[in-house]
Amino acid sequence: MSSTAGQVIKCKAAVAWEAGKPLVIEQIEVAPPQKMEVRVKIMFTSLCHTDVYFWEAKGQTPLFPRIFGHEAGGIVESVGEGVTDLQPGDKVLPIFTGECGECRHCKSVESNMCDLLRINTDRGEMLHDGKSRFSKNGKPIYHFLGTSTFSEYTVLHVGSLAKINPAAPLDKVCVLSCGISTGLGATLNVAKPTKGSTVAVFGLGAVGLAAAEGARISGASRIIGIDLNASRFNDAKKFGVTEFVNPKDHNKPIQQVIAEMTDGGVDRSIECTGNVNAMISAFECVHDGWGVAVLVGVPNKDDAFKTNPVNLLNERTLKGTFFGNYKPRSDIPNVVEQYMKKELEVEKFITHQVPFSDINKAFELMLKGEGLRCMIHMDG
Amino acid sequence: MSSTAGQVIKCKAAVAWEAGKPLVIEQIEVAPPQKMEVRVKIMFTSLCHTDVYFWEAKGQTPLFPRIFGHEAGGIVESVGEGVTDLQPGDKVLPIFTGECGECRHCKSVESNMCDLLRINTDRGEMLHDGKSRFSKNGKPIYHFLGTSTFSEYTVLHVGSLAKINPAAPLDKVCVLSCGISTGLGATLNVAKPTKGSTVAVFGLGAVGLAAAEGARISGASRIIGIDLNASRFNDAKKFGVTEFVNPKDHNKPIQQVIAEMTDGGVDRSIECTGNVNAMISAFECVHDGWGVAVLVGVPNKDDAFKTNPVNLLNERTLKGTFFGNYKPRSDIPNVVEQYMKKELEVEKFITHQVPFSDINKAFELMLKGEGLRCMIHMDG
Repeated sequence: MSSTAGQVIKCKAAVAWEAGKPLVIEQIEVAPPQKMEVRVKIMFTSLCHTDVYFWEAKGQTPLFPRIFGHEAGGIVESVGEGVTDLQPGDKVLPIFTGECGECRHCKSVESNMCDLLRINTDRGEMLHDGKSRFSKNGKPIYHFLGTSTFSEYTVLHVGSLAKINPAAPLDKVCVLSCGISTGLGATLNVAKPTKGSTVAVFGLGAVGLAAAEGARISGASRIIGIDLNASRFNDAKKFGVTEFVNPKDHNKPIQQVIAEMTDGGVDRSIECTGNVNAMISAFECVHDGWGVAVLVGVPNKDDAFKTNPVNLLNERTLKGTFFGNYKPRSDIPNVVEQYMKKELEVEKFITHQVPFSDINKAFELMLKGEGLRCMIHMDG
Repeated sequence: MSSTAGQVIKCKAAVAWEAGKPLVIEQIEVAPPQKMEVRVKIMFTSLCHTDVYFWEAKGQTPLFPRIFGHEAGGIVESVGEGVTDLQPGDKVLPIFTGECGECRHCKSVESNMCDLLRINTDRGEMLHDGKSRFSKNGKPIYHFLGTSTFSEYTVLHVGSLAKINPAAPLDKVCVLSCGISTGLGATLNVAKPTKGSTVAVFGLGAVGLAAAEGARISGASRIIGIDLNASRFNDAKKFGVTEFVNPKDHNKPIQQVIAEMTDGGVDRSIECTGNVNAMISAFECVHDGWGVAVLVGVPNKDDAFKTNPVNLLNERTLKGTFFGNYKPRSDIPNVVEQYMKKELEVEKFITHQVPFSDINKAFELMLKGEGLRCMIHMDG
């Protein structure tokens, strides 16, 4: 039992007081974990687009003050009533979508969309009692995605924590907690390219490059990267991308360009931008007879995916995925093992490092589109 | 060697001289099969919507005079140069889409969309020399789908013939040559419901009922039939349909009605109407996390399938199929075996019988929407 178990912990957190305003490092109080909850000491966290999107709060109901952050790695400090799967000292990755283990989705081999703990961007409190575990001077601060990793200590439902190999370096595997697994799983679990196949990846940010990494691991012979930003191609080579297509260089639909490059279409495509036109191109660029397109990127609320149904009838498949179809608790520990066995490379995703006190720099880098992942050191 | 081999055969055929006008039984000449071709004595043929659609010629370039017909069973009369897989006396089902065995599609385990012999509704001549094998008084009559089974004798590419069990009754398995296999395969090969699952079938014509038959064979616990024609429900029970939904009885989207009936959606849905709104409903009525929708029905040329991409991102799959994903020569003989082993029931699809001389009655029945399949006896 740690000396802090059962006690309120005072620690530092980066609090978002208002939409779009720089985070402020504050001394806050973190209450002990309640029933089926776990308090975790965060060691490293990185920044993902979803944090920025909800921090900007342009498209949704704002909920402030709030502690953002969901891509992270940490150590269990203490556990609440009923928690048997984890104990203090366990190395864990917080996951923004959970796995209760009991619902139809958790019992299905196909789904990872847990009825109880599925991602909920609107919820700012804990499920157990509808209250926050964070406060400053008695005033509650909202949670985010059930993770809120921009804090030295945070409280999560046990179903939102993947227990990983104690030897795994948290400053590396931290990035497997969200974006990298999302892209990787989209390829390995959903698109499933066979050895020698051709794969198109739309969008060469971290998620898209992770999808390309999955194609590289699968032994794809050609990996075609599509992005409007030509400067991304050089780095993309490290992730196995063999060819680059910039829609700006062509005056015909990009699905047609790709079909011409590949004698009728690619075997698999993975859409990681969230732009609805890119989704349509990603679908229409797969080969008839066997092509599979996988949608990963999150669209705008009112977008409509539109295609001629004959494109489907000619034996194309269109699928979407959420968190790469990984079940957070069951599967993520195995993704960490893939890294430990050197099948999967994660270092190349981590392009920047900052101390926690400089967390706003991570936001600036992402807003400028610089780099892939910025590792935030909680002890700095 | 049959005595007619190498000779022009004079026989009866039902010729469509003009779009939408009753067929006329004529004495015609059928030339011998050329390289890689086979001449077949048709014993039974049935009528499928596709025949009627191209006979009406409302939506496509008309090609007349033409001999329609593609769902049939017959006996090989003679073979042309290079044909080694078939010999006179073999029992065969003509198939409207072929399998050359050599192209990328034929070599793929996933596709049945042969590059050489894929369905071609515009072609009226044989591939080998671009000529017709049918004529009357020296004037050529066009082929249809490479099959033209409304003739006592017809000539096909060897790749468009499935060699079946010599013991199979042609007056029954004839219907496996097109529509029934299309619906059955959509379920068994593409939707693949597991035992105990829930399946929705849109459209309870012959193809839809064959899809339901596939769900029954798969052990689905609930098979929900959707049709605008309530009179179809009673017959549908024979095909395993357990519940019936008529969109006319509801004032909300039918996908919502089905989701409410099934605690969030069916496990699988199969769309057999070709109506684009039914396609959208069929997709949106499958459960998130694992639902698969399969499109079978052929839409109008300019239709657009439209959905919110989030429906895909929530782990639904949308696929189309062509001829139930069966490879004509490789797989159809096994479907006949399923019937021979009594796993599959085909008798219930055959609701009418007419002699060849009354072939126009089969057209009338289909135009009135009466019955499922009308068996046309070539010897009558």
